[in-house]
Amino acid sequence: MAIITLITDFGTRDHYVAVMKGVILGIAPDVRIVDVTHEIEPHNVLDGAFVLQQTWYWYPPGTIHVVVVDPGVGSDRRVVLTQLGGHYVVAPDNGLMTLVARDRPDHTAFVLDHEAYFLPSVSSTFHGRDIMAPVAAHLARGIAPAEFGARADRLHLLSSVEPIPLPAGGFEGRVVYVDRFGNLVTNIGEPELSLLGDSVESWHVLINGLSIGPIRKTYAEVPEADALAVMGGSGLLEVAVNRGRALDRFGPTDALKIEIQRAH
Amino acid sequence: MAIITLITDFGTRDHYVAVMKGVILGIAPDVRIVDVTHEIEPHNVLDGAFVLQQTWYWYPPGTIHVVVVDPGVGSDRRVVLTQLGGHYVVAPDNGLMTLVARDRPDHTAFVLDHEAYFLPSVSSTFHGRDIMAPVAAHLARGIAPAEFGARADRLHLLSSVEPIPLPAGGFEGRVVYVDRFGNLVTNIGEPELSLLGDSVESWHVLINGLSIGPIRKTYAEVPEADALAVMGGSGLLEVAVNRGRALDRFGPTDALKIEIQRAH
Amino acid sequence: MAIITLITDFGTRDHYVAVMKGVILGIAPDVRIVDVTHEIEPHNVLDGAFVLQQTWYWYPPGTIHVVVVDPGVGSDRRVVLTQLGGHYVVAPDNGLMTLVARDRPDHTAFVLDHEAYFLPSVSSTFHGRDIMAPVAAHLARGIAPAEFGARADRLHLLSSVEPIPLPAGGFEGRVVYVDRFGNLVTNIGEPELSLLGDSVESWHVLINGLSIGPIRKTYAEVPEADALAVMGGSGLLEVAVNRGRALDRFGPTDALKIEIQRAH
Repeated sequence: MAIITLITDFGTRDHYVAVMKGVILGIAPDVRIVDVTHEIEPHNVLDGAFVLQQTWYWYPPGTIHVVVVDPGVGSDRRVVLTQLGGHYVVAPDNGLMTLVARDRPDHTAFVLDHEAYFLPSVSSTFHGRDIMAPVAAHLARGIAPAEFGARADRLHLLSSVEPIPLPAGGFEGRVVYVDRFGNLVTNIGEPELSLLGDSVESWHVLINGLSIGPIRKTYAEVPEADALAVMGGSGLLEVAVNRGRALDRFGPTDALKIEIQRAH
Repeated sequence: MAIITLITDFGTRDHYVAVMKGVILGIAPDVRIVDVTHEIEPHNVLDGAFVLQQTWYWYPPGTIHVVVVDPGVGSDRRVVLTQLGGHYVVAPDNGLMTLVARDRPDHTAFVLDHEAYFLPSVSSTFHGRDIMAPVAAHLARGIAPAEFGARADRLHLLSSVEPIPLPAGGFEGRVVYVDRFGNLVTNIGEPELSLLGDSVESWHVLINGLSIGPIRKTYAEVPEADALAVMGGSGLLEVAVNRGRALDRFGPTDALKIEIQRAH
Repeated sequence: MAIITLITDFGTRDHYVAVMKGVILGIAPDVRIVDVTHEIEPHNVLDGAFVLQQTWYWYPPGTIHVVVVDPGVGSDRRVVLTQLGGHYVVAPDNGLMTLVARDRPDHTAFVLDHEAYFLPSVSSTFHGRDIMAPVAAHLARGIAPAEFGARADRLHLLSSVEPIPLPAGGFEGRVVYVDRFGNLVTNIGEPELSLLGDSVESWHVLINGLSIGPIRKTYAEVPEADALAVMGGSGLLEVAVNRGRALDRFGPTDALKIEIQRAH
C-alpha cells in the first residue's frame, strides 16, 4: 500500500482537501493518505518548503509527498515531480523544493505535461485537484516518473536562507519558522554546529545581542519562564521558553538576529 | 474497502469525532474513514449542505457520507439515509440534503428507525455516535439501505437559495460560503452562466453596484490586491482578491449583492 | 490491522504529528492510525487525561492509544505502556493515566526501558517520535508488552478530581473540560447520580448558587438561549446553553461552583 502525504495551505475548514482525496481514491483505491498539514500560511512557499524538508525523510521509500502552496496557479509556473532517491514530491515549481533540493542535490525532476494523467477537465484555479492529486495517484499505482513528462532542466529555488559565518567564529542566523508552541526555529543546524570546533559548551546563543546561555539539552535545564536555546527535533537550533512561548517574549521574528558566539 | 466520509461541526479539539470513528471501526474494521471537515460553523445547516454538495461527487460510487450538523438532536427530527445513484448520505433530516437533493432529484431516502442497527443505548445528545456512525458502518458492511427503515416521503429542504434573474438579463446572487482564503463563494453557477447567451466576456460582475470586471480565468489576470470574479473550483462564481482576502475587502457578506450584468 | 490512536498537544499546523506517523508506518506499514486530537491545551496533562478517558473504551480491543502531552520531556519522568484489559496506552508517566487508571484499577504498566525498540538516536525533546511512536508500532506488530520494560510499581496520578458530597445530600463539582461548543463538562457523572436516591427530577443544578433547573434530557427542553444541565455524551453532567455557549455565559470556569441539590 503506497503512501501519499499532503501538505497544503487549504486549511481544514473547507472541502478542498477532501476533494483531492476523493480524486486520489477514485484512481488508487488502496493508497494510504496521510495529512501532514493543511495550515501552511496561505501562499507562504518557504513555510511549505520547511515542512516538506522536516517531514519527507521520516517516511518509508516509495512515499509520495504532494505539496500544494500555489499562489501562481493559472499562470505559467510549472508543476513538477521530483525524485529523491526512492521518495517523490509532486508540487508547483515555485520554490517549494528549495530546502529539499539543497539536502538532496542528486534529485531528478520531471515537468508534468502528460495530460493523460490529469483530470479530463483542468481548471485554472485548482491544480491540486486537477493535476497533482491524479498524478500522485497514478504514480502510486506504479506509473514510472518519466511517463509524466520531460526532464526538468533545473528547479526554481528561493534565494538562499543560509546562516552567515561571523568574523570571530560562530554564525548569525534568523528565524525561519515559528511552531505552535511559539518556539522559534532558526536556520542554524547541525552543519553549522559541527564547524564550531571546540566543545559546544564554550559557545553562547544571543538574541539581538543578549545572551540566553549555551545550547541546552532539555527545557528543564533552565527555570520555568526562562529562555533557552536547544537543538530541536527538527535538527535546527530553536529558541524556546521553558513552559512558555518564545514568540510572545521575542516576536515579531522578522528582524530578530540570532547569533552563536564564543562565550567570554 | 468501503469509504465513509465525515462532515461535522464537532471541531477537531474534542474527542467526539474520534468516538464516532471508534464505533465505526468496532463494526466495520476494514472501512476507510476520510475526514472532510469538522469545522462546519456550529449548528449552521447550510454550511454543512454546501460542503456536502461540493464533496460527494468526487468520491467513488459506494462511498457513504455522514453529515452531523444537528442542532435539533433529541427533538423529533428524523435521521435519514439518502441514496444518490450509488452514493449514500447519512444525516439528520434538517435541511442538510437541500443542495444535494436539488442536484439529484432521483434520490431515494429512508428514515432510520430500525434500532437493531443503532448502539444498544441511544443518548439524547449524540446521535452521530449512537445512530449515524453505526448505521454507516453496517451499510459499509453490505446491509441494504431498505433494511434501515421505511422510505421517507420527502426530505426537509431549506428555503431556496436560487439566484434571481434580472429583467435586463443576467442574475442577482448572494454569498453562500466564505472559504479559508476569504474568497466569497456565490450561488451563481454554471447553469446561470449557460443562460447568459452571448460570450461571457460581454458580462460584468458587480458588487453592491460596482463593477469588478468580467469573469476571469486566473487570479493573475488582475494586479496584486485587485478584486476579481472567477469560476472557482466549486463550479460557482467566486469573488476573490489577487493574493488577498475578499472577505476583508467586502464583508460582512449577508447584505452583499452580487450581480452579473451586461457590460456597456 | 491494528489501530494506533494519537492524542497530543502538538497542534495540526506543524510537522510533528506527521513525523510520528512516518516513524510508525516505517515499522508497521499495515497499521491504521487515527487522530483523536492534537489540540490538547499545550502541557495540560489533565486535558489529555480527560480526552483519553472519553475515547479509549469506544475502540476495539487491541487498540493502542499514544498520548503525548509531555512538559517534562528530557527530565527523568518515565514513559510507560499501560494495559487495560486488551487495550493499550503509551504515554509519559506524568498524570495522563489519572482518570483511566481510576476507571480500570486492574491495569498493569511497564516502564519503557528496552532501547532496542526506540529509534537508534533518542533526542531530549521529542520522545513522541523517538520512543512512543516506535514502541507503539512494535506493539502493533505483536511484540508482547512485557518485552518493552520492567513492571512499573505504580503510576503517577494527579491529585483527585472527585466531586464532594454535600451534607444535605447531593454533590459539589467543578468544570474539568470545556468543549468546542462552549459546553462546560463537570466531574459529576453517573456514579454520583446513582447515589441521589429518589427520582432525578427532584434535584436541581446550581451554578454559583443559582438554579438552572433539573437535569434535562435534551437541549430543546428549554427556550433558545436558556441555560440547562444535561448528561452529556461523555457520561458527565454538562452545563450548556440551548443554541448558545455556556462558556460565554458563565466563564471563566476555574472558580465556578456546580452543585446538585434537592429542589424545594
